[in-house]
Amino acid sequence: MDFTVDERTRDYAARASAFLTTAVLPAEPVFAAQTAGRVGADPADPALWTRPPIVHELAAEARARGLWNLFLPAPHGPLTVGQYAPIAELSGRSPHLAPAAMNCSAPDTGNMELLQLAADDRQRERWLTPLLEGTLRSAFCMTEPAVASSDALNMRTTIRPDGASVVLDGTKWWSTGALAPECGLLIVLGVSDPQAAPRERMTMVCVPRDTPGVRIERALSVFGYHEHAAGGHAVIHFEGVRVPRAAVLGELGAGAQLAQARLGPGRVHHCMRAIGMAQRAVEQMAERAWQRETFGELLADQGVVQQWCGQSQVELDAARLLVQHAAWLMDSAGNRAAHRAIQQIKVLVPGTVQTILDRAIQLFGAAGVDDALPWASMFTAVRTLRIADGPDEVHLRSLGRAVLRSARPD
Amino acid sequence: MDFTVDERTRDYAARASAFLTTAVLPAEPVFAAQTAGRVGADPADPALWTRPPIVHELAAEARARGLWNLFLPAPHGPLTVGQYAPIAELSGRSPHLAPAAMNCSAPDTGNMELLQLAADDRQRERWLTPLLEGTLRSAFCMTEPAVASSDALNMRTTIRPDGASVVLDGTKWWSTGALAPECGLLIVLGVSDPQAAPRERMTMVCVPRDTPGVRIERALSVFGYHEHAAGGHAVIHFEGVRVPRAAVLGELGAGAQLAQARLGPGRVHHCMRAIGMAQRAVEQMAERAWQRETFGELLADQGVVQQWCGQSQVELDAARLLVQHAAWLMDSAGNRAAHRAIQQIKVLVPGTVQTILDRAIQLFGAAGVDDALPWASMFTAVRTLRIADGPDEVHLRSLGRAVLRSARPD
Amino acid sequence: MDFTVDERTRDYAARASAFLTTAVLPAEPVFAAQTAGRVGADPADPALWTRPPIVHELAAEARARGLWNLFLPAPHGPLTVGQYAPIAELSGRSPHLAPAAMNCSAPDTGNMELLQLAADDRQRERWLTPLLEGTLRSAFCMTEPAVASSDALNMRTTIRPDGASVVLDGTKWWSTGALAPECGLLIVLGVSDPQAAPRERMTMVCVPRDTPGVRIERALSVFGYHEHAAGGHAVIHFEGVRVPRAAVLGELGAGAQLAQARLGPGRVHHCMRAIGMAQRAVEQMAERAWQRETFGELLADQGVVQQWCGQSQVELDAARLLVQHAAWLMDSAGNRAAHRAIQQIKVLVPGTVQTILDRAIQLFGAAGVDDALPWASMFTAVRTLRIADGPDEVHLRSLGRAVLRSARPD
Amino acid sequence: MDFTVDERTRDYAARASAFLTTAVLPAEPVFAAQTAGRVGADPADPALWTRPPIVHELAAEARARGLWNLFLPAPHGPLTVGQYAPIAELSGRSPHLAPAAMNCSAPDTGNMELLQLAADDRQRERWLTPLLEGTLRSAFCMTEPAVASSDALNMRTTIRPDGASVVLDGTKWWSTGALAPECGLLIVLGVSDPQAAPRERMTMVCVPRDTPGVRIERALSVFGYHEHAAGGHAVIHFEGVRVPRAAVLGELGAGAQLAQARLGPGRVHHCMRAIGMAQRAVEQMAERAWQRETFGELLADQGVVQQWCGQSQVELDAARLLVQHAAWLMDSAGNRAAHRAIQQIKVLVPGTVQTILDRAIQLFGAAGVDDALPWASMFTAVRTLRIADGPDEVHLRSLGRAVLRSARPD
Repeated sequence: MDFTVDERTRDYAARASAFLTTAVLPAEPVFAAQTAGRVGADPADPALWTRPPIVHELAAEARARGLWNLFLPAPHGPLTVGQYAPIAELSGRSPHLAPAAMNCSAPDTGNMELLQLAADDRQRERWLTPLLEGTLRSAFCMTEPAVASSDALNMRTTIRPDGASVVLDGTKWWSTGALAPECGLLIVLGVSDPQAAPRERMTMVCVPRDTPGVRIERALSVFGYHEHAAGGHAVIHFEGVRVPRAAVLGELGAGAQLAQARLGPGRVHHCMRAIGMAQRAVEQMAERAWQRETFGELLADQGVVQQWCGQSQVELDAARLLVQHAAWLMDSAGNRAAHRAIQQIKVLVPGTVQTILDRAIQLFGAAGVDDALPWASMFTAVRTLRIADGPDEVHLRSLGRAVLRSARPD
Repeated sequence: MDFTVDERTRDYAARASAFLTTAVLPAEPVFAAQTAGRVGADPADPALWTRPPIVHELAAEARARGLWNLFLPAPHGPLTVGQYAPIAELSGRSPHLAPAAMNCSAPDTGNMELLQLAADDRQRERWLTPLLEGTLRSAFCMTEPAVASSDALNMRTTIRPDGASVVLDGTKWWSTGALAPECGLLIVLGVSDPQAAPRERMTMVCVPRDTPGVRIERALSVFGYHEHAAGGHAVIHFEGVRVPRAAVLGELGAGAQLAQARLGPGRVHHCMRAIGMAQRAVEQMAERAWQRETFGELLADQGVVQQWCGQSQVELDAARLLVQHAAWLMDSAGNRAAHRAIQQIKVLVPGTVQTILDRAIQLFGAAGVDDALPWASMFTAVRTLRIADGPDEVHLRSLGRAVLRSARPD
Repeated sequence: MDFTVDERTRDYAARASAFLTTAVLPAEPVFAAQTAGRVGADPADPALWTRPPIVHELAAEARARGLWNLFLPAPHGPLTVGQYAPIAELSGRSPHLAPAAMNCSAPDTGNMELLQLAADDRQRERWLTPLLEGTLRSAFCMTEPAVASSDALNMRTTIRPDGASVVLDGTKWWSTGALAPECGLLIVLGVSDPQAAPRERMTMVCVPRDTPGVRIERALSVFGYHEHAAGGHAVIHFEGVRVPRAAVLGELGAGAQLAQARLGPGRVHHCMRAIGMAQRAVEQMAERAWQRETFGELLADQGVVQQWCGQSQVELDAARLLVQHAAWLMDSAGNRAAHRAIQQIKVLVPGTVQTILDRAIQLFGAAGVDDALPWASMFTAVRTLRIADGPDEVHLRSLGRAVLRSARPD
Repeated sequence: MDFTVDERTRDYAARASAFLTTAVLPAEPVFAAQTAGRVGADPADPALWTRPPIVHELAAEARARGLWNLFLPAPHGPLTVGQYAPIAELSGRSPHLAPAAMNCSAPDTGNMELLQLAADDRQRERWLTPLLEGTLRSAFCMTEPAVASSDALNMRTTIRPDGASVVLDGTKWWSTGALAPECGLLIVLGVSDPQAAPRERMTMVCVPRDTPGVRIERALSVFGYHEHAAGGHAVIHFEGVRVPRAAVLGELGAGAQLAQARLGPGRVHHCMRAIGMAQRAVEQMAERAWQRETFGELLADQGVVQQWCGQSQVELDAARLLVQHAAWLMDSAGNRAAHRAIQQIKVLVPGTVQTILDRAIQLFGAAGVDDALPWASMFTAVRTLRIADGPDEVHLRSLGRAVLRSARPD
């Protein structure tokens, strides 16, 4: 094994790091000021859900620095999944700004990957090109409120072929970004043939957000946050929504496979961004520890604080290696071969990062839960990762069954 | 030992339980509707921070049912600390409504205890009577942003005697309830004599909120929540605030002792309410488990869910006994004798409840972090308890040093 | 609730404490010296498995001090289960000596309870009287090597009625005490009617250890220990073992119920002794912390050590209350009503104590794993408790299902 | 980063794996039989502490297969630290046999590394050559009973230069292997100049075990085990032990540096062997899960078992990568540059493996603590690793302080 970071990665990481330090982190208070008035959950008010000007300024800057669309794995972009991983980590240090500025934020990234993989020319032109340009945004509609969505067979939304159209009926939620006025595209997964074999039962469709029958009911909250600038999280009803068959991604019945393919790189991105959050937390815990004194002793000189810093860094370094390994497996053997490795990081990383952020909050005391510092918001983001794309327990179950299967008699 | 619940407690608990079931829980959606428009953190907008009508309706109902001011320990109220504990637990099941409806919500309760203990007749008439009537609300101003407040010797706010007045200068934060328009009283702790012995260095003063020089800078957030109906959490500047010496509680130099006395019953209340939250969570986890199916199996039939339910209930039952024991010690031997027992519950209960609520969120999946269910908000409340009144680590340190002291060679 | 310790308990506890301090603890090195030559696992060598002289000396002393057979719940002994609990805790501080000296050691205690409950006059005279006198010892044969014994329906040993006899066939293991030469009685549980309803399928029989067909195969080890003075843990084969029907305890088919009845008080005893181990560990951790210095600082002044001491004591105090509560429930409502409370302590206490002993070992460093100190041996004892009488997971499952059942629709 | 396992490593690993499967694992019952009579802790009985014949047979076999002394890092052996790591893991699956058979067992390996590094020609000939041949064994005497040895400045053993000799006085313990009759060499660390700077205060000396004044007091136990075939763990007194100055390793005052150098690869070996133990445990947990049934369901179908298997494998895979990374750093940047990486694995791996072995014991039930299965013995070995070479807390403190130092103002 060779843990050397290659030249190209070092180059991009250095540039991303410089961008972060000189442009993004100083822009955080600007972002806070520009979004300070964004309160409430009114789905009908586009001003709430749009990106503030600072994001567009940073985007121009990122683009000028060659830090644009880096998430797209080679050959479509300059970096492999493994090479992009450290960039994703860096972007996670400022999660509201850096990913968006670099056109590397979920769910657009996953949607662009999907379109790269499965879109035909017309779909590419209509959806992929503007997404890559950053002039369009999109949402992904998979999870449903009425059932345990971690088991795909529970899905109730239907995508019924009807002549030259398909017709969608059902309710989705946690459609992140769907409230943003820039969001023009909903990629929707639904059951097209309930009698088909499980893997051929579902279909994925590109639905323009303004299609009749699409109705956004409300914006969900994540702990007390609505994540306005990210376009929120929507509950969306599809009531007899009719789109042409040409809106189907890939083909009828290919939805399950496409959904699977979409998840791999995204989980690496999520995990690396989470690691970036925790790494920033550890560093700022250390800074804070030199500034606070209790009972006549700097926090930095207190044993419990030292243990927290040491323990957090070890856990983080181990978690990062596991993610890098999964990324390498994707690059070298393909997403399918990396399936279990990706489940492993899904299970290990968010929990690890949650624990570290919990320590950070504790060390920062009452300041730790308020929004003047990023920890509370980061905490809720990684807490949610333990549920998103299936709760940890479903993945652990799957990993455990794989271990057990290897030992199965005959 | 006799774990029998006495007749009086059973009676009050039965009434509180009936009140909860028939009045409070059905009012939760009303509360949600009445506060739905409360967004943002504008300290200047009183409409944001006042109690909605449903609280007043419930208060009338609670009063009619004899469930009013029960927190006041006998002989001032009908119940001992230990007898009130199960009532506090019940009220924690609906933390936004039940404590307020019963005039049993922090920080008013602690302030009323303080006034009961140390106020002179004029102070009682001006402040205690309307607080007991529920026509006035109050805040407690102790924690400061610039220092580690868990070490009281770090305190920087000064309360300088000046002729017939005392003059306050300094900044406090996490003054819960201070933004409510009904809040007329701030009880402030500050240094009156920096040269005095530690225990005589501080003084506590009753400051009318409209006194010149009192300036509320901003409302703090708790994981994105502003807790509007509770009157928020304020950053307050005291700039040359002058009040008459008669506003001093007890006497000059008595602040530290009063602060200590204030904490005891309040911690029991906080812990029991937290246990009530967790108990409700366990029960609703169990309900949910019969409604959801994954991979062909009800959650209720899945081993991990069974372990979570079993484990949570055991941890909860042990934690509850520890709190009841601390309450009994307060009743039978006094708050001072119960000092360590109170530190113990401060350290054990919020962490235990946080873990259980984390499980609840996990079991409820994506619904668990949204506000249509109470778990996310409860989670942030108990997470904050691990910091409030000193972080766990400070109390563990104190408890550990007590253990060590017992073994100290001569 | 009234947590006052009653007069009788205080009296017995004071005497037990004095016995421990003045007689038992000073005898520990004598016990170590007298058993130092006991090595190996030869089941045929009685000298290995007998109690050393010091136990008999202490027994005489305990009897003289009125500390004999205290485990027997009133009205058969002077103490209720709850009153005996603190005595059991004290005895756990010296687990190899104190319980044996007071004729309060498992499995004899459970067997005496069984005989008290279900033996007829002849059985009482033959078995119970000498057990109470301490002139006989006994083993309990339930667990089997070939199956998961936590599910009683897996049991394979048969107790076949045959005329005026019953005939036993099968293999038992973890029959503690069975290798002691003083052990004259094996109480064996087996299937007497495989067609009967589950609760009537089993029977319990008193088998003299020297009955033909009883064959001890080997002595098991517990992490390297053979627990010689306790009579070891035996694998026992029953091959056509014939005893008269009069040897049946209670009646044919009553075995399951008797087994259930046996477990209650025993679990309280086990848990309280485990708490005694941990309490001693905490106290000696504190002593040690004043004697060791690293990096220029006494351990007692180091934050991590303080946290360990504080945390351990809190966990211990909560665990102890849970056990006392279960004991009170047994005393006031009976073993059956206390069933879940007993499962709760079974699940909470050994794990808690294991964690505390793990900390003790860590604090004592390399000395902590060697036998000159009691921690390693205690650790293995409580680790084993997490498996004995069914692994924690089986009890958690049962507790969880009870929680779930309460929420079951219709 | 490139996680590809190189050709040479794959080759050696395949051979080691074949050796394990075809020779070592089948020899485990032979080893058990040949050492079954080894009981007690008599330091004077060499038969107790010698390797049984099967080890020598396996050693011949290992040598014939080219699996001898592989631990010696290139250029002295065929493999780098990183390449040897997977071999060490494989050897850990049978910890009593495989490392010894391959002449790769501690403490001989560390001692050979030391001699390779610092021995002069005569020392090499006398000690290194026979150690490499496997005809000699050795012990390392560093830890002391009277002080906290994790702080080297506490050391009390003196190595006083006296003319052409040095004279040793002091007591060491946990000198693993010292009781073996094959053990001819003790490498001893002591204070040669208490006035010197800390890093020049100590000296390391090669002491023939039969030197007058060397007295083995007793054999220590590890949770009831004496690890006879490994030569036990000795308490050794050095009373006026005189050896020629030529016995000094390196030079006077070089002891601290040599001790530091010795630890690096050894910690990688320890950690990889521990991972091998856990990996075997996970695999056998899975096997067992198909053989046991409770409550009508195979363990393999039970959720908790699935979680344990999944969780264990994830933790193991992350831990293994962290060790591989540390090994790579040693290979590519040297032991000193890898210092913190080595502390990290010291802190992460044994705790992780302990947790997994604890699960294994739980899953195997009562069988899990008995010696017919390897888990109990493995558990005690990794538990001890959390103390050996300094307790985890000392390393966490050091790691934490390094994190904090990076953030130190100016």
